[in-house]
Amino acid sequence: MSNIEIEFPDGAKKEFATATTVREVAATISNSLAKKAVGANFAGKVVGLNHQLKSDGKLAILTKDQPEALPILWQTGAVVLGAALQELYPEMYFGESDITEHGFFLDTDNQSGQVAETEFEKLNQHLQKLVKQALPLEEVELDLQAALKIVGNDPYRQELINEQATDDQKVTAIKLGDYYDFSVRAVLGNTAALKVFKLLSVAGAYWKGASSNPMLQRIYGTAFFKQKDLDAELARQKEAHERDHRVIGNELDLFFVDPKVGAGLPYWMPKGATIRRTIERYIIDKEVADGYQHVYTPVLANLDLYKQSGHWDHYREDMFPPMDMGDGEMLELRPMNCPSHIQIYNHHIRSYRELPLRIAELGMMHRYEKSGALTGLSRVREMTLNDGHTFVALDQIEAEFKKILQLMVGVYADFDITDYRFRLSYRDPANKRKYFDDDEMWEKSQKMLKSAMDDLGLEYFEAEGEAAFYGPKLDVQTKTALGGEETLSTIQLDFLLPERFDLHYIGADGQEHRPVMIHRGIVSTMERFTAYLTEIYKGAFPTWLAPQQVAIIPVNNDLHLDFSQKLRDQLVAKHVRVQIDDRNEKMGYKIRQAQVNKIPYTLVVGDKEIAADQVTVRKYGEEATNTMAVTDFIKEISADVASYSRENN
Amino acid sequence: MSNIEIEFPDGAKKEFATATTVREVAATISNSLAKKAVGANFAGKVVGLNHQLKSDGKLAILTKDQPEALPILWQTGAVVLGAALQELYPEMYFGESDITEHGFFLDTDNQSGQVAETEFEKLNQHLQKLVKQALPLEEVELDLQAALKIVGNDPYRQELINEQATDDQKVTAIKLGDYYDFSVRAVLGNTAALKVFKLLSVAGAYWKGASSNPMLQRIYGTAFFKQKDLDAELARQKEAHERDHRVIGNELDLFFVDPKVGAGLPYWMPKGATIRRTIERYIIDKEVADGYQHVYTPVLANLDLYKQSGHWDHYREDMFPPMDMGDGEMLELRPMNCPSHIQIYNHHIRSYRELPLRIAELGMMHRYEKSGALTGLSRVREMTLNDGHTFVALDQIEAEFKKILQLMVGVYADFDITDYRFRLSYRDPANKRKYFDDDEMWEKSQKMLKSAMDDLGLEYFEAEGEAAFYGPKLDVQTKTALGGEETLSTIQLDFLLPERFDLHYIGADGQEHRPVMIHRGIVSTMERFTAYLTEIYKGAFPTWLAPQQVAIIPVNNDLHLDFSQKLRDQLVAKHVRVQIDDRNEKMGYKIRQAQVNKIPYTLVVGDKEIAADQVTVRKYGEEATNTMAVTDFIKEISADVASYSRENN
Repeated sequence: MSNIEIEFPDGAKKEFATATTVREVAATISNSLAKKAVGANFAGKVVGLNHQLKSDGKLAILTKDQPEALPILWQTGAVVLGAALQELYPEMYFGESDITEHGFFLDTDNQSGQVAETEFEKLNQHLQKLVKQALPLEEVELDLQAALKIVGNDPYRQELINEQATDDQKVTAIKLGDYYDFSVRAVLGNTAALKVFKLLSVAGAYWKGASSNPMLQRIYGTAFFKQKDLDAELARQKEAHERDHRVIGNELDLFFVDPKVGAGLPYWMPKGATIRRTIERYIIDKEVADGYQHVYTPVLANLDLYKQSGHWDHYREDMFPPMDMGDGEMLELRPMNCPSHIQIYNHHIRSYRELPLRIAELGMMHRYEKSGALTGLSRVREMTLNDGHTFVALDQIEAEFKKILQLMVGVYADFDITDYRFRLSYRDPANKRKYFDDDEMWEKSQKMLKSAMDDLGLEYFEAEGEAAFYGPKLDVQTKTALGGEETLSTIQLDFLLPERFDLHYIGADGQEHRPVMIHRGIVSTMERFTAYLTEIYKGAFPTWLAPQQVAIIPVNNDLHLDFSQKLRDQLVAKHVRVQIDDRNEKMGYKIRQAQVNKIPYTLVVGDKEIAADQVTVRKYGEEATNTMAVTDFIKEISADVASYSRENN
Repeated sequence: MSNIEIEFPDGAKKEFATATTVREVAATISNSLAKKAVGANFAGKVVGLNHQLKSDGKLAILTKDQPEALPILWQTGAVVLGAALQELYPEMYFGESDITEHGFFLDTDNQSGQVAETEFEKLNQHLQKLVKQALPLEEVELDLQAALKIVGNDPYRQELINEQATDDQKVTAIKLGDYYDFSVRAVLGNTAALKVFKLLSVAGAYWKGASSNPMLQRIYGTAFFKQKDLDAELARQKEAHERDHRVIGNELDLFFVDPKVGAGLPYWMPKGATIRRTIERYIIDKEVADGYQHVYTPVLANLDLYKQSGHWDHYREDMFPPMDMGDGEMLELRPMNCPSHIQIYNHHIRSYRELPLRIAELGMMHRYEKSGALTGLSRVREMTLNDGHTFVALDQIEAEFKKILQLMVGVYADFDITDYRFRLSYRDPANKRKYFDDDEMWEKSQKMLKSAMDDLGLEYFEAEGEAAFYGPKLDVQTKTALGGEETLSTIQLDFLLPERFDLHYIGADGQEHRPVMIHRGIVSTMERFTAYLTEIYKGAFPTWLAPQQVAIIPVNNDLHLDFSQKLRDQLVAKHVRVQIDDRNEKMGYKIRQAQVNKIPYTLVVGDKEIAADQVTVRKYGEEATNTMAVTDFIKEISADVASYSRENN
């Protein structure tokens, strides 16, 4: 065997025998480094401690405090979990394992006797035993036939092995005792570092993510190098769980998804639908008042429309398959609304007097997201976008951009969204050929956007090279409840589609001119926005959005129901969403239920209140109550309901 | 040749030589009958005067005053038109001919030199010449090859001939001089009766109705036995044209359909969209106030859902093709919303306390109507239905049925719909096996519907044998503007779907019970209802529905624009849809334009009005104007806008 040459970060080069492991290389540098090492960056790839080096390359030893370290720990966790499971459940089959944003999972199939979370205690004890033994994890190369023999009847690992096999019939595995993992990723050298370890949950997951395949048991876990990091992660998960719109959506009965009937296709229950309808009416009214003309356009169109727009060429993998209607017509579910609004624009000859022409719609679209990416309401396959397209003359870009920004900022204030930042995206000046070819248009319009932001005194950061092919844009990045970032709103200039669809308007000079198109979305899709609001409000929607705004609780149904009903009717007349809780339950229970359902106002009505024509009011989340005249309460709630539109009235 | 035996309506039988014509048979009865005869009902089929009788059968001579006579006249008209065209345009090819509700058409292809309506005069003169000559129309049998030779290069008649050819290579044609028509239907004996004749219009029509085929010229005409009948028909057509929602929709810019982008897929322009949005908000608010819970459910679902519901087995030809998602999942655009609402019902275990449970939605659906049937907004392929499903216990049917009826009658009053009648449809008592098998359920529920109608004092007619397979129903038949009848609303009991989806609720007894499902639609689809309203209002929508409610016309833009703008702002604050017409046009022109656009109120503002803080108001369709204080006008229009909800406020 010949030697290999390893180059270190400081530029030093050294020869080693072929198949020297990363740990051995680290040991030649210093013993303490070998101890701290968790793996290495070798030839651009993260590899494990027992990985054998077989070619020349640059190598940097990784230690615990580097960002690559946790994924190595987590992948080790998945292997140790597999080994523990194999010892406890000898009949178990093993699917894929992988790391997530916050830990790892391993897919398993123990046939009829699946693992329940109640067994985590036993499993954990066994894991700790393996950790204490500091067992080595080896990276081994096997002949295909030998590997297949090792996994016996396990159909999943058989498939993984066959997929992995090289032309010369070799496969690589991570070996821990008798357990073999074939999703080879970088792992630690032995099990000892896995002391701070936590099994989290089990869930169903289709083999290879396809619903036509068997359902496996996905076991989630996480691990850290220090206990305090695990504590912080568990606290974050608890908070995330409490804010998770899927959890709240289920508790408050807002929506559900039934994967059997269609993954990524949510059903909005009455309460969720009320929130959505309120948002829809709000944004339409706001836009109409701002000069938008709302339209309805069909979700289906001839595929040719998306060939002309370019979506079919550049976006096909996210589109649904076309439907062959048998008479030569191919119909397609739209992935975006822009071509539909171009149809509206092009239905008439347009004059400069009509510009800026603002077309808007709550437009339903369909995108075929991968099933693994689908998440409650926030990632779906059928969605309704608060979409709008403004057609402007070149010299109107700045004013229109400002107008849209002002609309956006006003809407954010109405929804009490405060944690966001603006990103201006330009083309990459070093690589202009990647973009729509019109230097002057780019220069002018980028300047206009910047100057508009400055004029309005809005803070922003600039991102060169982040523009779309067809024009510069502004994105609004909101902080999600869980600390992530999400683009909620966007304003994008488009020089391309007006060309592709040969749009024009008649100028004051009587000649044809090409308009610029501005794509803009304020509150994104109804699905994503509702998910976002649910998380920032933790399900406690402000009064104007709350599905039920008032709960009336008669102290005694026999004595106080009449007054309650009259009170309800008065509120209904003011368009308040109110219900009487006249179940045969204790008053304390009803009050708690109103809190669980996060109803903004709970009114208690008893003898005292009736005598004085008053109500005792408890606001959501407050312990204190306040007794006030019925007329005053009606005034208060009317103001509260109208609060979002304060500025308009 | 053997004889045939003909049986007459009075039971008399008589022998004739085979191939005796209808006219010859009539002559054996009386000469006057032979003169009045236009054809015959022979063996259950309408045949022409020169049809040769070749088998035994019952025969009744038809005369002008019978309902079968006009179609015979019209079919004759199509043949005579073909003969005239062939003489004038020797190169012309001929497609299909057929009769319509009010006349006939003939499809033609004269290659580059298509016929224009301006040539009708010349064509008409030639037709009259053929009529005067009283030329015979013969029904002839030809050998296939001889027939093909006759039509030469005409590809359409070649195809018709080949389709018609019998096993022994024979085809039948109607022959008029050198012209042969192969869409054989009953025709008169000669051209003389065709004196009252009118060519109507030309339009494009795809050969065989498929958009992948060549576009032919469809020439429409009609004919009557008497001039006064033609005059009445032309008056009706003029009225129909004036009310036609496609004509008005184009004039008022409400919507358009672009067959290149998708036949039957309308685009709602801003003004049409405003009407639709107003209807949508109206009906949702009305239903929510009536105890309905509005939801949003996806337009896509796994095909299995429609297999379970039975739609795939019984309704497939109206459904869009399923989309194969490649992982074993087949997704289908829903043809109806009921299975979606069943999903909502089944998402929770339901208690008798929740019944009647009322789920409603503006539910988008897709139905693949034949392209020939598509009409503007009234027959489309993508539609949004005002749909609702009520789940009730058996003993709640009557009360719930009444409640729905009352909602319906209230809605009709709000839209000022007065010309309708109720039809109660029962199962056919003579053929119970055709219906869902539950005698008691049918008997009880039919009685309940009838008793509800009687209780409410509503007039109705009963139709035995018109029920759906799954239960009895009530339809509301409205008169269309054109004298036709259309089902606008419906209430249908359904015993079947609750079985198919195994629906139940927990009764007061703690046991599971099966609910009954009531399908109900009040204002049908947004598309059809808007078409219907456009026609009954002739485009002059009542103020609350009008896309633009007020036009403000300053007498002089330089002097009166400020006041106009202040006036506009006051009206906008009251949610009035108002625009200022400040174009540089004469005042008279602007006033006429406001009338053309059927805007309910036109306000003129000049010196006099400004001095007195007044406006001069002209209501749509009225000549008189009325000068009143601005505050009074605001009061008047607010009341007018609110008028639809008079009863609620």
